[in-house]
Amino acid sequence: MQNIKFVLSYDGTGYHGFQDQGDDQPTIQSSLEQAVHRLTGESLRVTGAGRTDAGVHAQGQVFNLRTNSRIPIDRWPYALNSVLPRDIVVLSASEVAQDFHARFCAIGKTYRYSIDNDIFANVFSRRYAYHVREPLDTTAMSAAGSLLVGKHDFAAFRSTGSSAATTVRTITSLDVERHGHMVTVEVSAEGFLYNMVRIISGALIDVGRGYRRLHAIADALRTGDRTLLGATAPPHGLCLVQVGYPSD
Amino acid sequence: MQNIKFVLSYDGTGYHGFQDQGDDQPTIQSSLEQAVHRLTGESLRVTGAGRTDAGVHAQGQVFNLRTNSRIPIDRWPYALNSVLPRDIVVLSASEVAQDFHARFCAIGKTYRYSIDNDIFANVFSRRYAYHVREPLDTTAMSAAGSLLVGKHDFAAFRSTGSSAATTVRTITSLDVERHGHMVTVEVSAEGFLYNMVRIISGALIDVGRGYRRLHAIADALRTGDRTLLGATAPPHGLCLVQVGYPSD
Repeated sequence: MQNIKFVLSYDGTGYHGFQDQGDDQPTIQSSLEQAVHRLTGESLRVTGAGRTDAGVHAQGQVFNLRTNSRIPIDRWPYALNSVLPRDIVVLSASEVAQDFHARFCAIGKTYRYSIDNDIFANVFSRRYAYHVREPLDTTAMSAAGSLLVGKHDFAAFRSTGSSAATTVRTITSLDVERHGHMVTVEVSAEGFLYNMVRIISGALIDVGRGYRRLHAIADALRTGDRTLLGATAPPHGLCLVQVGYPSD
Repeated sequence: MQNIKFVLSYDGTGYHGFQDQGDDQPTIQSSLEQAVHRLTGESLRVTGAGRTDAGVHAQGQVFNLRTNSRIPIDRWPYALNSVLPRDIVVLSASEVAQDFHARFCAIGKTYRYSIDNDIFANVFSRRYAYHVREPLDTTAMSAAGSLLVGKHDFAAFRSTGSSAATTVRTITSLDVERHGHMVTVEVSAEGFLYNMVRIISGALIDVGRGYRRLHAIADALRTGDRTLLGATAPPHGLCLVQVGYPSD
């Protein structure tokens, strides 16, 4: 039996997130499992590195599966892409050790939040970027973002209902950039709390348009008070860019 | 009565082209006319500069309409965008002379054809770029494209069924560029024949992947023989970038 690691991109617009919810809603996971079943006849369970929410996209999601199929390893992406819907594209496949697990072996993830910062929305990025009309001060956003880099208790930066044992996380980098009308917030960490990147992005957007001061971010970090931050930014601006493993 | 010129962008994926076909298919024109009716109560006819086909996009389409509405000119884009579907966005409005006609007054148009030239398709550009897996030689494409610049009989470069009085057109510029995996063919002309840019793009793509030699393009230009060129490139890669007027 082979354990195969895949890198995957998808447009999450039409999906109720990566992970199956036990209902009949379309998910990335169920699409992948159906594709594998069509190719090999096997009913396999697909494990994803990040459980992206409904509407969230991925450029470099990772999943693995254990298969008895004899499809050559380099043909797997072509085989899967031939049966997957067009909004899910497998980019690479590689054989990994039997104990490789896409989620538990991950040592870091990078997410990008994209903001279309122009008076009128760009029709071509409307599915992948959150439209914010007010001019964003990216210098102020960078300053607020730099407060979050490092090991902190991010209790204020998670949605209620998340059940993580600890709310301490380590952000290894946070970069705010502007390219023309597109502003991006790219965040790397060993791990994230539920909705953490969307809450960070929402807070930085509020700083960027002057609705919220820098010290509100510092206060939220210190007190764990979620109400000091703004609204959670909507899912369609978020993209899972990359997942890191010790072997990379 | 005011004559207003609008600049407009749209994602053409969900539309049967700009112009109403007299059936119930959704078009950009009918969406605009419905939006105007909702705002002003007027049943106005909207005239577009370019009659983009089903699935073709626009970054800078132009249309005009004559209205008795008292909406201030600078509020028109906001008003229209508030009632238009999200895949149509009005970018600007300006008052023009009574005899301005978006189509007949246009003195030039620029179209861009986008090609996603990677082994696997990019999910985020799949609606706006034609995926060509084989590596494209953009130097050869540029050389072929430069044969087309100037005043020529483009009889070979139009779809049958087009009823233009003459097939002589003047291409003022044709640029092939590569940015990473994205290859673009940008063509400017005073006017185009039906499907001309998509036929040019299909022929250049064939040259780029080595299916067709440079002299086939020259022969097609000389003989008017459509069969010397490859398939018409699909509509979703095409975008109307800009329309020029004497007053610009």
